[in-house]
Amino acid sequence: MSFRELLQQVVQNVDGAVACALMGVDGIEVDCVLQEEVGLDVRTLLIEYSSLFRAAREAASAHEAGGVSELSVQSERLLVVARLVSPEYFMVVALEPDGNFGKARFMMRVTAPKLLAEL
Amino acid sequence: MSFRELLQQVVQNVDGAVACALMGVDGIEVDCVLQEEVGLDVRTLLIEYSSLFRAAREAASAHEAGGVSELSVQSERLLVVARLVSPEYFMVVALEPDGNFGKARFMMRVTAPKLLAEL
Repeated sequence: MSFRELLQQVVQNVDGAVACALMGVDGIEVDCVLQEEVGLDVRTLLIEYSSLFRAAREAASAHEAGGVSELSVQSERLLVVARLVSPEYFMVVALEPDGNFGKARFMMRVTAPKLLAEL
Repeated sequence: MSFRELLQQVVQNVDGAVACALMGVDGIEVDCVLQEEVGLDVRTLLIEYSSLFRAAREAASAHEAGGVSELSVQSERLLVVARLVSPEYFMVVALEPDGNFGKARFMMRVTAPKLLAEL
């Protein structure tokens, strides 16, 4: 299955998902599937959020908390969950605020190894 | 109930919780309850992580995603969940990696208004 199909599968299987992307930890998008319009620029926000992943990684490593595998940010209009796929790439799901957070985390856990196999 | 008692209640009621703190968004700790030794400096890590909360807030606000209410970082040795209590303060729970994430989020949702009433 291609990157795109794997990302699409996540979006389709998570209630409230509006986007799923594969991104470099450097913030460069590899691929992104947008499910519906939410009235804000999700792709740009995800790029901006990728710096959080880098900052969390540096802080955790500096304080001996080990590698960062997952990060989530809940804001008024969007819930974003990111999960590391490889040391250089992570996948991210953006959901409506009342979207199914647990299902998103589950789908990412299942999909990350499949994405990794395609990298 | 005092700050400390409220924080203690969270630590005691969440499986795998190692610390619960009330912090300023500027990174200054108001109070912190440490449950057990995890072999890393949790308090310093939480101060470092508070910059993530500020960065997430700036990014979300700049991209019209609204205010940030919750942030979580899962690393190899620690799971940290932060929740906004007021525009200036947030509470944070640190758990062992396999700690009860759902219960931590629930306890924070219940406790945040009580902490706010004491601020």
